[in-house]
Amino acid sequence: MSADLMPTSVSSDAPRERILATAERLFYLEGIRATGVDRLIAASGVTKVTFYRQFASKDELILAVLEQRHLRWMTWFSDALKRHGGQPDALVPALAEWLRSPTYRGCAFINSVGELEGVEAVRRLSHDHKLDMQQAIEALLPASRTRADTAAALAVAADGAMVRAQVDGRPEPALRALERIVRALTG
Amino acid sequence: MSADLMPTSVSSDAPRERILATAERLFYLEGIRATGVDRLIAASGVTKVTFYRQFASKDELILAVLEQRHLRWMTWFSDALKRHGGQPDALVPALAEWLRSPTYRGCAFINSVGELEGVEAVRRLSHDHKLDMQQAIEALLPASRTRADTAAALAVAADGAMVRAQVDGRPEPALRALERIVRALTG
Repeated sequence: MSADLMPTSVSSDAPRERILATAERLFYLEGIRATGVDRLIAASGVTKVTFYRQFASKDELILAVLEQRHLRWMTWFSDALKRHGGQPDALVPALAEWLRSPTYRGCAFINSVGELEGVEAVRRLSHDHKLDMQQAIEALLPASRTRADTAAALAVAADGAMVRAQVDGRPEPALRALERIVRALTG
Repeated sequence: MSADLMPTSVSSDAPRERILATAERLFYLEGIRATGVDRLIAASGVTKVTFYRQFASKDELILAVLEQRHLRWMTWFSDALKRHGGQPDALVPALAEWLRSPTYRGCAFINSVGELEGVEAVRRLSHDHKLDMQQAIEALLPASRTRADTAAALAVAADGAMVRAQVDGRPEPALRALERIVRALTG
């Protein structure tokens, strides 16, 4: 999987997969409200009838995209942590792969919650995503009385690094700050 | 100033101030793209002509709102850090005031960058806001070779706590995680 975590689709894919891949890409790169249904239909190369047969509404599509994104992101994250040694200090080089990719635009879940203020289903899905991320981080830590608390702190630091890299428009200061926190909490 | 950091306006305020206060509130609580110019005009109680005399475009208004928000937030933040003792551990109770307020919806700057993907002026303004936040945090730290790096790490942790409280829909896990990081970095 490419480190930029962007889905690709080809015209031979089933319509549902084409719509999902197109929506994930456009929602992430241009924004959810900025991407209208007409644009999604045109960019997916499906008809309006086919689109609405797959997704009754844009809201339904948004949730399906976030669920797909969650699976894709977790698969990449677990694999990257393993490739970088499976220890607490794997967190920084793993996230660096993503934060340094040219299409990086922050965390799709944090962006969605910020943009779709008040859509409770999006907040809940994002909350669950962050819990799974935290559990993957916890699995890097040795057993101890404070293991869960340390994982929660590392997960918050990872979120902070994601938004800071996005706001800075470059990843290095965020990664250095994250490395400092990882060392202070687990070194 | 109220800990929820929301601006209030009264009908006796000048039109520009009324529009800015209304826009800051609606952009923050409902989203920037979700808030159309017609709604802003109606909610501000001004005419269309008056609105466009003050702000040539919605983009111009967005930047003016973020500039106003920056001043309001920094004034509150500096004051809160002082009230809580002006030491590194003031960061947690200071941010707690804001994260616990009923209208808390995350950081307006992080939300804006996530929503207005590709609007470089918004990203730059948000970057400058975070730099000022980081400098206010640095002022809490004793002089040392690593002072700036510690401040950068604390600022990233603060950003992480802001987004985690927003995604969780409650502030306490985020504040506990932040406290743990503050203690590890400065204790």
